[in-house]
Amino acid sequence: MTNGDIFVGETLGTSILVLLGVGVCAAVTLNRSKAQHAGWLAITFGWGFAVLAGAYASVSLSGAHLNPAVTLGIAVKTGEWDKVPLYLAGQFTGAVIGAVLAWATYLGQFREHGEPVLGVFATAPEIRHPIQNVITETIATMVLVIVILTQGLTNGLALSGTGVLITALLVVGIGLSLGGPTGYAINPVRDLGPRLAHSFLPIPGKGGSDWTYAWVPVVGPTLGGLAAGGLYRLAF
Amino acid sequence: MTNGDIFVGETLGTSILVLLGVGVCAAVTLNRSKAQHAGWLAITFGWGFAVLAGAYASVSLSGAHLNPAVTLGIAVKTGEWDKVPLYLAGQFTGAVIGAVLAWATYLGQFREHGEPVLGVFATAPEIRHPIQNVITETIATMVLVIVILTQGLTNGLALSGTGVLITALLVVGIGLSLGGPTGYAINPVRDLGPRLAHSFLPIPGKGGSDWTYAWVPVVGPTLGGLAAGGLYRLAF
Amino acid sequence: MTNGDIFVGETLGTSILVLLGVGVCAAVTLNRSKAQHAGWLAITFGWGFAVLAGAYASVSLSGAHLNPAVTLGIAVKTGEWDKVPLYLAGQFTGAVIGAVLAWATYLGQFREHGEPVLGVFATAPEIRHPIQNVITETIATMVLVIVILTQGLTNGLALSGTGVLITALLVVGIGLSLGGPTGYAINPVRDLGPRLAHSFLPIPGKGGSDWTYAWVPVVGPTLGGLAAGGLYRLAF
Amino acid sequence: MTNGDIFVGETLGTSILVLLGVGVCAAVTLNRSKAQHAGWLAITFGWGFAVLAGAYASVSLSGAHLNPAVTLGIAVKTGEWDKVPLYLAGQFTGAVIGAVLAWATYLGQFREHGEPVLGVFATAPEIRHPIQNVITETIATMVLVIVILTQGLTNGLALSGTGVLITALLVVGIGLSLGGPTGYAINPVRDLGPRLAHSFLPIPGKGGSDWTYAWVPVVGPTLGGLAAGGLYRLAF
Repeated sequence: MTNGDIFVGETLGTSILVLLGVGVCAAVTLNRSKAQHAGWLAITFGWGFAVLAGAYASVSLSGAHLNPAVTLGIAVKTGEWDKVPLYLAGQFTGAVIGAVLAWATYLGQFREHGEPVLGVFATAPEIRHPIQNVITETIATMVLVIVILTQGLTNGLALSGTGVLITALLVVGIGLSLGGPTGYAINPVRDLGPRLAHSFLPIPGKGGSDWTYAWVPVVGPTLGGLAAGGLYRLAF
Repeated sequence: MTNGDIFVGETLGTSILVLLGVGVCAAVTLNRSKAQHAGWLAITFGWGFAVLAGAYASVSLSGAHLNPAVTLGIAVKTGEWDKVPLYLAGQFTGAVIGAVLAWATYLGQFREHGEPVLGVFATAPEIRHPIQNVITETIATMVLVIVILTQGLTNGLALSGTGVLITALLVVGIGLSLGGPTGYAINPVRDLGPRLAHSFLPIPGKGGSDWTYAWVPVVGPTLGGLAAGGLYRLAF
Repeated sequence: MTNGDIFVGETLGTSILVLLGVGVCAAVTLNRSKAQHAGWLAITFGWGFAVLAGAYASVSLSGAHLNPAVTLGIAVKTGEWDKVPLYLAGQFTGAVIGAVLAWATYLGQFREHGEPVLGVFATAPEIRHPIQNVITETIATMVLVIVILTQGLTNGLALSGTGVLITALLVVGIGLSLGGPTGYAINPVRDLGPRLAHSFLPIPGKGGSDWTYAWVPVVGPTLGGLAAGGLYRLAF
Repeated sequence: MTNGDIFVGETLGTSILVLLGVGVCAAVTLNRSKAQHAGWLAITFGWGFAVLAGAYASVSLSGAHLNPAVTLGIAVKTGEWDKVPLYLAGQFTGAVIGAVLAWATYLGQFREHGEPVLGVFATAPEIRHPIQNVITETIATMVLVIVILTQGLTNGLALSGTGVLITALLVVGIGLSLGGPTGYAINPVRDLGPRLAHSFLPIPGKGGSDWTYAWVPVVGPTLGGLAAGGLYRLAF
């Protein structure tokens, strides 16, 4: 993989991931959307298939990390750190682009909603307790990354269509099972990129961007990715 | 692939796609259907599995485009345009046949419904704003086509069972995430074929066919397919 | 495949198919079941995964027809008819066994339900109109069988894990899209076997077995299977 | 596989399985969870994807049994019993760890719930009737294990990504179809491990651990696994 492939792949893949992920939150939340009130199953399957789309589009370019927690976990596993900044740059760029595209897709709905819409872009806990929230995000991300890391053992499945599909359904499962307390960022840029977009996009009545919570869905998933990498080295 | 294979494959595949797709809209909408009120998840999974069925039946005959936006995106990518009219002819023929078959399947329900039923056949926006609606359809179709185009990079997955399955779930995901504003045509013939069928089928109280909107789900997906092809050439 | 393999495979596979299929109808219908009111999505995914389980268990023994409509469609396609009675015998035997096992699984619920329970075992139309009902079942079964028949073209997928999975999701899709009018038997023994079991099982207040309708879900799927076989020979 | 691989694989895989499985019960049950009231589909897909995650992480280490019923069924099939205690030890250890991790993930929700929460950890029947409950668990587990055992016939699919995916969806299907009466343990440690965790974890108002029922979800699945192994030897 060239540096260009990595940056293009991660930007393209993460922009699709966040476009569809923020999109499903818009679909289920905003007034005058056909999917309003479609509920938690729609959100969890929507985010899972967002991973499917983003990963499938980018897997042969960059390996489809699309998530700093995955990149860090792989770096701990392999000991190779030199491409990490490049991956993170592509992921963050893609996350912002994806959020802007989701806004463009739901432009009419955003114009008419008239209430705060941060929940469409970023996560928020049901019970605000930073330490508990970090623990929840750390555990959920550890599950994601340890399963991705162990895939490499199974006939190189990680880079195949079947591996992409299983990872996508794994994300559905993490959402269903571990998303209840914090809305499962499990990916630092998934939260930070759209939160930044929320802060600069012109949406009437959009409300604040809740920057005091913003570190939680960055720190939790980062710890989870690092811990999964460490656990992998310990166990295998 | 012979010309006959292409026409038969696209007609067969698109007729199955539209039969099941219009079918799920009938199932969820019409009175005296066991699936009435099954909701948005049923519609999005129904359309996704409609793609699965149509594509699986036709993939070895015609490559299972089943969608002019896909055909145009591939033409831009490859630079080969001579088969495009043949693909489009098969797709349009299949879409009309599929809509008629869906009507035959739900004949009793259509006879008793007694209210306008255009929503079973064609898409309509929640907020009627042609430019916004075109943007929504363009973005949603770009996601579909760019993911399909990049599949070719991944070990020729596009023509395998796994590739068909992933494409089907991708369509579920696009519906969940980007379908809220316009009901996601993301395929010109998926809207135009059934709309035409609605206009000539004998359904009591069926209401108008809303031809003033009909250009939107043709132009948006067409632009999306062309843009995806262009983006592919730019990025790869 | 020996004759013994075929009979054992079809009996085992169809008994699992019907156990899980009748099971999900019991789960969603009966009082004091945790799944009561889980709705149409539960029923359609339940029947699809019933096919997955039954087919996966039997595919290497008998090829996992599990459905006379599939057996007939394959016979028309290949011109080989001599094993057809053996397949049908296994399928019917398995369907009755599966229905009895489902009754044993929900024994407590059946004892306490106290209302007619034919809907757990057999299909019934929303609008009783034999010709329309036969048309609906014929079209739905044609979709099932034509997709299964064309799989053979795609790298022998029909007998692989991926082929089994796609067929299962296809059954979910047919249920979602075409199940509204008649409850989609799309398989003569799926209806006839459990209906027979309903007639002889000791269930308090079970109501009648509606034998006047019983020919519809036999004739419709049979016609659909034969027509799919004929269409296949015509088109390929 | 070394003994260490087996123990690590089963402990890791079962801990992920139970973390996500108990997690989805917490998500749907507890107050102040975003997934509260997401319903039976969420629970059944959640448990299925829990199997997907746990099995995918451990399949190349230990073969991903993750369930004494599977281990016993394989032992009856192969006649090799010497590794059985090692598998069971890993499974039980993992089940307790997974339940504790689920508690940590939902710590805030458990603190505020204030009502008995045994249903998050362990199964309970809708109609308490030990013999019926054992029959239900035995039949449901037989379906699980017989399908897993017959996979070995199909090109060694059991150890592939596709095999893991199909097994996961099979678990969704068993939940949808056969979970109504008892909540489908179908795995002795899935019930016993979290029940033990419930008994020692400090949760306010947690209620009793219902040890009088605890033998049913151990005995039923054990019988089902043994019977499936026996049936396999008989039929093949």
